[in-house]
Amino acid sequence: MTEIASPLVGPAVILVRPQLSENIGTAARAMLNCGLTDLRLVEPKAGWLSERAFAAASGADRVLLAARAFDSTAAAVGDLARVWATTARNRFMVKPVDSPRAAAAVMRAASAAGSRFGVLFGPERTGLENEDVSLADTVLNVPLNPDYTSLNLAQCVLLVCYEWYQAGVAEAPAAMTKGAEPVASKEKLMGFFDHLERELDACGFLRVKEKRPVMVRNIRNLFQRALLTGQEIQTLHGIVHELVTYRRRKGEAG
Amino acid sequence: MTEIASPLVGPAVILVRPQLSENIGTAARAMLNCGLTDLRLVEPKAGWLSERAFAAASGADRVLLAARAFDSTAAAVGDLARVWATTARNRFMVKPVDSPRAAAAVMRAASAAGSRFGVLFGPERTGLENEDVSLADTVLNVPLNPDYTSLNLAQCVLLVCYEWYQAGVAEAPAAMTKGAEPVASKEKLMGFFDHLERELDACGFLRVKEKRPVMVRNIRNLFQRALLTGQEIQTLHGIVHELVTYRRRKGEAG
Repeated sequence: MTEIASPLVGPAVILVRPQLSENIGTAARAMLNCGLTDLRLVEPKAGWLSERAFAAASGADRVLLAARAFDSTAAAVGDLARVWATTARNRFMVKPVDSPRAAAAVMRAASAAGSRFGVLFGPERTGLENEDVSLADTVLNVPLNPDYTSLNLAQCVLLVCYEWYQAGVAEAPAAMTKGAEPVASKEKLMGFFDHLERELDACGFLRVKEKRPVMVRNIRNLFQRALLTGQEIQTLHGIVHELVTYRRRKGEAG
Repeated sequence: MTEIASPLVGPAVILVRPQLSENIGTAARAMLNCGLTDLRLVEPKAGWLSERAFAAASGADRVLLAARAFDSTAAAVGDLARVWATTARNRFMVKPVDSPRAAAAVMRAASAAGSRFGVLFGPERTGLENEDVSLADTVLNVPLNPDYTSLNLAQCVLLVCYEWYQAGVAEAPAAMTKGAEPVASKEKLMGFFDHLERELDACGFLRVKEKRPVMVRNIRNLFQRALLTGQEIQTLHGIVHELVTYRRRKGEAG
């Protein structure tokens, strides 16, 4: 097997609850067209090692063979520092929006800095759920005919991968600020969310059951947006811990 | 039916001897995604008004319904002033080669000048014949992973149409999701910093005097970066307040 064209590590392609084997196969083909091989499937509703998938992959078998399945979106993005969520609909979430071209420039810079990153693609019929989108830093929206934006899953994968590839053909990667610490992995961020939400449950901040999912999502979104470094996540752990335990100590003493 | 996004006349998409209804349908969908409707079929080997074609078109019916069939490539390009021929293979012909992006820029200029133009796409398995390519002015070659250039017909149509559409979309500056609340004033942000730092002083998190200025700066920086809305700042006030007072209540009671 020869080397792929791009010397940099490209985006992971994360298909969330894909419904059709053909689309997984066609997505794999589009990925390999653009030199990408890291395919991740979250709760796949269709086989990715099926005859239909291999037929659609048209020779890009190695992408399907190396694909990994996860039982949650959170698990699938755990090792990534930056995540985009493709969506056509307005989510009423406060999140920056990139076009595939703008995202590709950011990806090239992230790749040059040694970061890992990926893009979430939703199920064919419904697209990503808000739950999934809240795990992303940035929304990825393909500028298309506003009167007909219904984009096939594999087509959407292709456009994102294509722009990644073209960004490497065209010009050298933009540099990151020197000495900048890399953005922490989603796993570390998730660890902080666990800690924070545990304490917010304990203190009653999240006591209204029907509001809890929206509140959790809003809180996660605001921290996602900050693109936190590992050191900053440590600081936040410390803040939550100290705010909570000092009062306990004081309360117990007083 | 509302207007398509592009006010200019775009390329005709000419599928030469397409073999699969699904591919015709998916190509029609990709065209409409990019505001294009002029679909031409040369000696089609599959039905373009079939159930399979409409299913693949996923609502882009009007492109299929308006498609025209021709019995030769020459007839299909008769009214066009400029023709590109998509091909991955080296044809040993002396012809200029454009990428889809370069072709799109030329197309925009041609369209503004009132020219008609189109792009030839070959059959799925074999691609265009030299006979067809000889009717084109320019070869259109998609820069892709040189080790795996096998591009699905509809995917190739999409990339060409996508670049046409993008050439008309001015790359907007990074946007936030629509309906997003505006970023809060610095005054509100400062109010949160006051609250947080008062509590962090009280609990001892900032007790090391010489480290305090750096720690405060780091904490402020990470929240600054999140571009918080007024609602989010209220949430953060609530989080700090609840974490602190619950423990106090609990401690005092216990």
